[in-house]
Amino acid sequence: MPNHKIAKTISCVRDFQNQNPGKSIGFVPTMGYLHEGHLSLVKRAVKENDLVIVSIFVNPKQFNQGNDFINYPRSVKTDLELLSQYPIDLVFMPENNEIYPTDFSSKVKVDKITDYLEGHFRPGHFEGVTTVLAKLFNIARPHRAYFGQKDAQQLIVIKKMVADLNFDIEIIACPTIREKNGLAMSSRNARLSANERDEAKILFQALMKGKESILKGERNSGKIEALIEKTIQESHSAEIEYVSLNDAVNLAPLTEIQGEILISLAVNFGEVRLIDNILLKT
Amino acid sequence: MPNHKIAKTISCVRDFQNQNPGKSIGFVPTMGYLHEGHLSLVKRAVKENDLVIVSIFVNPKQFNQGNDFINYPRSVKTDLELLSQYPIDLVFMPENNEIYPTDFSSKVKVDKITDYLEGHFRPGHFEGVTTVLAKLFNIARPHRAYFGQKDAQQLIVIKKMVADLNFDIEIIACPTIREKNGLAMSSRNARLSANERDEAKILFQALMKGKESILKGERNSGKIEALIEKTIQESHSAEIEYVSLNDAVNLAPLTEIQGEILISLAVNFGEVRLIDNILLKT
Repeated sequence: MPNHKIAKTISCVRDFQNQNPGKSIGFVPTMGYLHEGHLSLVKRAVKENDLVIVSIFVNPKQFNQGNDFINYPRSVKTDLELLSQYPIDLVFMPENNEIYPTDFSSKVKVDKITDYLEGHFRPGHFEGVTTVLAKLFNIARPHRAYFGQKDAQQLIVIKKMVADLNFDIEIIACPTIREKNGLAMSSRNARLSANERDEAKILFQALMKGKESILKGERNSGKIEALIEKTIQESHSAEIEYVSLNDAVNLAPLTEIQGEILISLAVNFGEVRLIDNILLKT
Repeated sequence: MPNHKIAKTISCVRDFQNQNPGKSIGFVPTMGYLHEGHLSLVKRAVKENDLVIVSIFVNPKQFNQGNDFINYPRSVKTDLELLSQYPIDLVFMPENNEIYPTDFSSKVKVDKITDYLEGHFRPGHFEGVTTVLAKLFNIARPHRAYFGQKDAQQLIVIKKMVADLNFDIEIIACPTIREKNGLAMSSRNARLSANERDEAKILFQALMKGKESILKGERNSGKIEALIEKTIQESHSAEIEYVSLNDAVNLAPLTEIQGEILISLAVNFGEVRLIDNILLKT
């Protein structure tokens, strides 16, 4: 079992870097409650870099609803056990006041592409994401940072921030990891009942139906969205927030399908809000 | 005459850094039209670092009035001649679209301390400053960056951004350099008439009167502001925008003077807006 070091403070991370000059650093930022999705990012980071830093920080600024932050699942002990299977060099686990001292008053914001989808339904969410990542990038100073395709818009927003603000970091997108029944892995799945967890498989099935319809030649996004929504409604627990077809680059909503597109959705099962998506080229 | 290299593109700066690993980098960001104030920063950067990067970029995003950006003085040839007297390693002189491509849509903002003084009178100014500096810091990746005390609030805002976003950069404040008559050096002084330039010496004289009054025991900031304003009004060309006494750390306006304070002002001479300030401890 590799004995990786834990850093609670930013100055510990700086010390670690000063002790390891000139090495390539892979960075996997997480909010903990790790699952196979996170571990796939860790595996890839280990493969591609001299050193790997994983951060575990449940970022209050990216939760637009207070309850969601409070209810977000946490299990540091299990997280560290899972991570101990990999040759990680540093786990950064700061307390909240290490990241946000009381007089903290800066923000990083990406405009336009954050107006749609998650940005529309979760006001302030992406500002929280980009602010904490600007900080974590400056702390970890990685050469590569790894994110899951499951949070498709987050990935696009982060790539835009990195390009716009000239962070010298390669953003690596990794495929969504799914349960056997197709449900996208998410820390939030832990809060689903057994029945909801079973019913939630409908999300991926519905996305696949949308894809099938496009492959058969359908180009009207309204019709495809309706087909996906009708499929999801077969589940009694599902409450749809949105199903949307957007341009995969600038996230503009589409009426006619063309080029590379993102089909994404947010659906509530009981009190748990799930998101999923697929990318495809027409 | 040292033969320093000019980089027009970000990728040229990255190449320069890759060719010089492990060396300390001092960075002097400027908007050109260099004067003794800028050169004092350059001298100090040369003394304290292995390598020095100077940038010349008139940042459109920090001009809240279009005319001020258009009228801002520029003289690249003279700037390069002046810089050639110092052993600078790289001059970064990007075109506007290298810094702000057409789809640029991110921003970096410091709240609260930007509500006062220049932030109040020039809405959007500091957002432009912090956005371009976050970019330039990520491009130049310096260990130390040098700024003049003349732009007192800018210095405080930059230090706050660096602390809040965890840039691993030491911000070095350098004293205001003044003409023989006391006028603070500024690229904008070039736009003053001979008469205005002479009259503008009143600004520093007025600040000194304010200081004197404090040293004599005055603690009521309204009275000190009135004294400074009355002194400035002896000049017929001067139109006062503000004279203000603020806490030197959080920039809160003061009624009673205490601790470390900033006395700052903005005064128009014809079409030219000048700022100046002094710091003092009570």
